[in-house]
Amino acid sequence: MTFNELPAHVWPRTARREEDGIVTIGGVALPDLVEEYGTPLFVVDEDDFRSRCRDMAAAFGADHVHYASKAFLNKTIARWVDEEGLSLDVASVNELGIALAAGFPAARITVHGNNKSGAFLTQCVTAGVGAVVLDNAAELEMLDLIAAKNNMVQKVLVRVKPGVEAHTHEMIATAHEDQKFGFSLASGSAFDAASAAINAENLELLGLHCHVGSQVFDADGFALAAERVLGLVGQLHEKFGRELFDSFTVLDLGGGYGIAYTADEQPLNVAEVAHDLITKVGKFAANLGLPTPNVMVEPGRAIAGPSAVTVYEVGMLKDVHVTDEQTRRYVSVDGGMSDNIRPALYGAKYDGRVVNRFVDGDPTATRVVGSHCESGDILIDDELYPSDIATGDLFALAATGAYCYAMSSRYNQFGRPAVVSVRGGRSKLMLRRETLADILALEG
Amino acid sequence: MTFNELPAHVWPRTARREEDGIVTIGGVALPDLVEEYGTPLFVVDEDDFRSRCRDMAAAFGADHVHYASKAFLNKTIARWVDEEGLSLDVASVNELGIALAAGFPAARITVHGNNKSGAFLTQCVTAGVGAVVLDNAAELEMLDLIAAKNNMVQKVLVRVKPGVEAHTHEMIATAHEDQKFGFSLASGSAFDAASAAINAENLELLGLHCHVGSQVFDADGFALAAERVLGLVGQLHEKFGRELFDSFTVLDLGGGYGIAYTADEQPLNVAEVAHDLITKVGKFAANLGLPTPNVMVEPGRAIAGPSAVTVYEVGMLKDVHVTDEQTRRYVSVDGGMSDNIRPALYGAKYDGRVVNRFVDGDPTATRVVGSHCESGDILIDDELYPSDIATGDLFALAATGAYCYAMSSRYNQFGRPAVVSVRGGRSKLMLRRETLADILALEG
Repeated sequence: MTFNELPAHVWPRTARREEDGIVTIGGVALPDLVEEYGTPLFVVDEDDFRSRCRDMAAAFGADHVHYASKAFLNKTIARWVDEEGLSLDVASVNELGIALAAGFPAARITVHGNNKSGAFLTQCVTAGVGAVVLDNAAELEMLDLIAAKNNMVQKVLVRVKPGVEAHTHEMIATAHEDQKFGFSLASGSAFDAASAAINAENLELLGLHCHVGSQVFDADGFALAAERVLGLVGQLHEKFGRELFDSFTVLDLGGGYGIAYTADEQPLNVAEVAHDLITKVGKFAANLGLPTPNVMVEPGRAIAGPSAVTVYEVGMLKDVHVTDEQTRRYVSVDGGMSDNIRPALYGAKYDGRVVNRFVDGDPTATRVVGSHCESGDILIDDELYPSDIATGDLFALAATGAYCYAMSSRYNQFGRPAVVSVRGGRSKLMLRRETLADILALEG
Repeated sequence: MTFNELPAHVWPRTARREEDGIVTIGGVALPDLVEEYGTPLFVVDEDDFRSRCRDMAAAFGADHVHYASKAFLNKTIARWVDEEGLSLDVASVNELGIALAAGFPAARITVHGNNKSGAFLTQCVTAGVGAVVLDNAAELEMLDLIAAKNNMVQKVLVRVKPGVEAHTHEMIATAHEDQKFGFSLASGSAFDAASAAINAENLELLGLHCHVGSQVFDADGFALAAERVLGLVGQLHEKFGRELFDSFTVLDLGGGYGIAYTADEQPLNVAEVAHDLITKVGKFAANLGLPTPNVMVEPGRAIAGPSAVTVYEVGMLKDVHVTDEQTRRYVSVDGGMSDNIRPALYGAKYDGRVVNRFVDGDPTATRVVGSHCESGDILIDDELYPSDIATGDLFALAATGAYCYAMSSRYNQFGRPAVVSVRGGRSKLMLRRETLADILALEG
């Protein structure tokens, strides 16, 4: 693969390098978008986003897929998710607020969080959200009371720590449980919580939830977690008998489906994993004499991540003296850790390409840095890039749809970039660029 | 020290635990502030901030201290810095914009950055900023042209990489230079750049700049960098002769003055370090037959950091099964990595205290976590805290004035906390809380 090729498994599905060297997404030339909206610019491929929703729906059933809005949410995204028939996960009062503002049906919203306030839970109940995922005992009691006060029965899931952790390519079958989310299987607190939810007058337990990790490539972690959680279902069945299953049908295995950030990574094959997982869950359930549960999943990154790119303009170049034998080309771009904290926060890697023309200089040790006043403001740490990347070029990072805009800051008082969607040769503003006026608007 | 004591070298200078157990800052009870402004809340001690400005001014001379606005900037902060007679560093067009909006005199503003655009440099020149710190050769040429076009002579510094890196308690005297800022001493590019600045028709070189690191406790790094940079001054003197010093008077040693985040850390003693550094620089200069330069410094964290605390409300509590012999108390608060990314980003530690009452339960292994949908959302990783911290308590982290609000995000669509200043028994809103309406205002 040359620097001018776009790795298809990393870039948005409609991204093309045209004959003149210009990259288009959704049939729109990125330099034209920059002309209209400026840089840095997030460009979201609507067809890509929707097609990944459909892939997930085909694999698990649309009813069984919840888009995890923490990855990237705005009203347009919420509408796309709605139109594709998926459900939506929210984890804060404002995520719920955006979804409702977009007209997302409350009944298809599931609510997460380790620290939901009474006010938030009240809003969930009165809005009529589909389910609340219970995370601790005090919340369970509080929600039961709130539902009673509102003459409602609130549907809930109970979040379980299955003691399985999946980190990218490695799965830890006996993970310790020293993290904030959920009830422990091992200690019996998950059993107690599920029992309490079943017994609570104003709660209806739909099933159990677990989450094994992020950027998972070893799908065995999902299956092992499912097996363990089904063991708990078996215990509940013993205690409550067959009528447990009148309402209890859900096995929510959370998110974590790994995507490719760089050319040499391969995304998890969703269709294969789904088929394998659903088959295994069916067998596990049968072995325990349980009905087959509905396997639910909560992809965020796997839908939003590959759908967007961030386009920067190249500014200053510098050949830095590293040793007497070695220099490194520093390529500065007009964004950085404010619009993408992931390299600094997680050591994340990205695929970067010049998108306004072909470049063909000699491979040169290069570091792509942002414009922030911090030496750790690095977007791409160490790659061999053509030597003819020049000031004024447009340089784009792929797979920035998840956890980039969502975690963006105003460090150095940078305004957030604009976000546009593209489809069929047209662009549409999703989120306008933040200005100095937006920043000053908060002054007391 | 008990949990109810506030370590004076970590907390704001006017912070007190009153007899009823309530903590006041600037004579204002934190629970009263929470009543008025909600949580999470940043509380800035105006007397503390101003007194640290004065300490720096006393140590180095007010003319020689630049507050690094990237640490924390808004119009009120800019006015305080102005009133205390310090200068201001900015590193982006919006930092400059906020300073000018606050009426900060442009002549006392110095401009940093590795990737200043032509538009930004033009704004700097036309606004009449005191100095631009040149970071690379293309910028030097561009600024000279822009100044010429505006019939101005722009004062500049040249940023030098001295090959010294200071990381907290360790100083590396032979640091490699593989980072984005400045011109290399070792390779001769710093000499070339300074020469070019001297020769440029529309630039006036005021001196040289370097920066050795952040949270520095080993002050030898500053002195060694000063010695190396003075070596370059000597070379320039050889080339340009005595008249070099008609305008060339500045040795800017940057920022990095370490503060105490926890009770067992000790802040760098600014007065001692200043005295020592100025003495040494005088000797180095005399040895080289050079006039004694004006030692400039650029503290950000050392002024803003200890002046503020973040007040959270305690929400859910959970005793998490770690092993069969061990549990850990999880205390959830209503903020997290959106308002303080430093624990996740840098492994930063903080001093946390209950501020609405005395607590005196048994020491219990505790982790303080935020409300974000991410297991890495940890504010305080592992401390022994009293067992009677309860839901509804107010829990504050000290020394959050620098790089917390400045790097805050809207992760999970959290709005930014409000920021209030306190002094003499009164509070004043600096920055209002962000709302869902602010977030939705960006929708295209």
